[in-house]
Amino acid sequence: MENLNIVILGSGNVATHLSKALDKNGFTIKQIYSRTAEHASQLATQLQCQQTTSLDNLVSDADMYIFSLSDSVYQSHSEVYRFLTKRKLWGKLLVHTAGSVSIDIFSDFSDRFGVFYPLQTFSKSQDISFDNIPVCIEANTTADLHILEKMGKKLTDNVLFITSEQRKLIHVAAVFACNFTNHFYTLANEILKEKNVDFDILRPLIQETAQKVQTMPPEKAQTGPAVRFDKNIIKKHLNLLSFSSKLKKMYSFVSESIYDYHKKNKQTS
Amino acid sequence: MENLNIVILGSGNVATHLSKALDKNGFTIKQIYSRTAEHASQLATQLQCQQTTSLDNLVSDADMYIFSLSDSVYQSHSEVYRFLTKRKLWGKLLVHTAGSVSIDIFSDFSDRFGVFYPLQTFSKSQDISFDNIPVCIEANTTADLHILEKMGKKLTDNVLFITSEQRKLIHVAAVFACNFTNHFYTLANEILKEKNVDFDILRPLIQETAQKVQTMPPEKAQTGPAVRFDKNIIKKHLNLLSFSSKLKKMYSFVSESIYDYHKKNKQTS
Repeated sequence: MENLNIVILGSGNVATHLSKALDKNGFTIKQIYSRTAEHASQLATQLQCQQTTSLDNLVSDADMYIFSLSDSVYQSHSEVYRFLTKRKLWGKLLVHTAGSVSIDIFSDFSDRFGVFYPLQTFSKSQDISFDNIPVCIEANTTADLHILEKMGKKLTDNVLFITSEQRKLIHVAAVFACNFTNHFYTLANEILKEKNVDFDILRPLIQETAQKVQTMPPEKAQTGPAVRFDKNIIKKHLNLLSFSSKLKKMYSFVSESIYDYHKKNKQTS
Repeated sequence: MENLNIVILGSGNVATHLSKALDKNGFTIKQIYSRTAEHASQLATQLQCQQTTSLDNLVSDADMYIFSLSDSVYQSHSEVYRFLTKRKLWGKLLVHTAGSVSIDIFSDFSDRFGVFYPLQTFSKSQDISFDNIPVCIEANTTADLHILEKMGKKLTDNVLFITSEQRKLIHVAAVFACNFTNHFYTLANEILKEKNVDFDILRPLIQETAQKVQTMPPEKAQTGPAVRFDKNIIKKHLNLLSFSSKLKKMYSFVSESIYDYHKKNKQTS
């Protein structure tokens, strides 16, 4: 298992963290492909492996090819797709790491394919331990599912068998839980800037808000004027936001959603 | 300072955590007032102090009265307001702990008043350390500001001089950073339920999303399809949400806000 030779296609956030974690856990990264020479070179230097910026130079003797590229390359007009059409990789295990892409995109190019989707927000500049990251795996055969499971378990305690259908919806849920919440941190910062207050003041609150739902279901952790339907405070807040019609609109919209959700769930419980 | 005798009015989340923290740090909680006998009794038992459910029985020999009640009691028709009108507490330091309430609500009832607003989300059931919680203080005299500062510093390293104007806007920002983000955790959970996926899968992502902005400004931490303007994924996600017009509407609304924010800031930077 540890002698598995792997080619990584991609040099973005997921490719970087995943290839480093594989390397650290005894897997051999044979080659890094990236369209951008500088990115390929940076990552290949760290992993002491080959690099290429051309798909034509992809080594053919690896066991597994992990595609960790932006979702658009899996569309039929893309360079990668054209390459795979030209040079099928029958017998090789082709794996992608994308939330929103079906398992069967590789079915025309190999008889072995799967998904290895780590559910986390990665930044190149921020080190992160893989230990606890949920990895959603899927494969077209039981044998390859077992290979991905063993590989996953070397990296994390949190390997999950997830279908393409489930994974796609998990990806949408992750947009709400990560991308949208981060945007609300950004909007909060915009509000503070109005009165020259530093974002630092919100950091402990943000951390505790995330901490609370580590053990509680989020609907039980809901606090604030909207869930209490405190019209008086809501009105005050909307007045305070009169400097921005966008923020006012967002405040009303989300407050209404909170109120509707909890009213409905109260009635049905 | 430690010999300061304090009366706490309230037995909710803030009153509970604040009175425990004060007690732990050497302050004397003389009496707990709550309209609800059970709540008053629970907290008073923990702090080994007097309790009352009647404002008329409030002790008159305390140094400080901390009002940690729901915001509505500060309105002129409320019981507390009527009580204060009847029994002014001249010479006593009257303090409230509310984000959205002005410092001057006490000005008719004492010559000494202030604000002690801990910016955190509290749940009675969840223990929390005060060490790092930002406490926003304000007082009508420098002498009392100094008393509140000293009291705050016993509890936390994070005491901040904040005006009523700033504090009100901080409270709105906190609604975005805490209440609204928690609602997005809830909506994410709703999405997962569609395909019977456990909320556990999102917990590491939620924690890391909050962790990232402990050092980064949130606008730099933004990831996801909306900030990349990845129309293809956004369209896929909207299709996946076709089971709920509310979730679809929310997805579009927030995605547009992310896109607008980052487009605007790119142009101006």
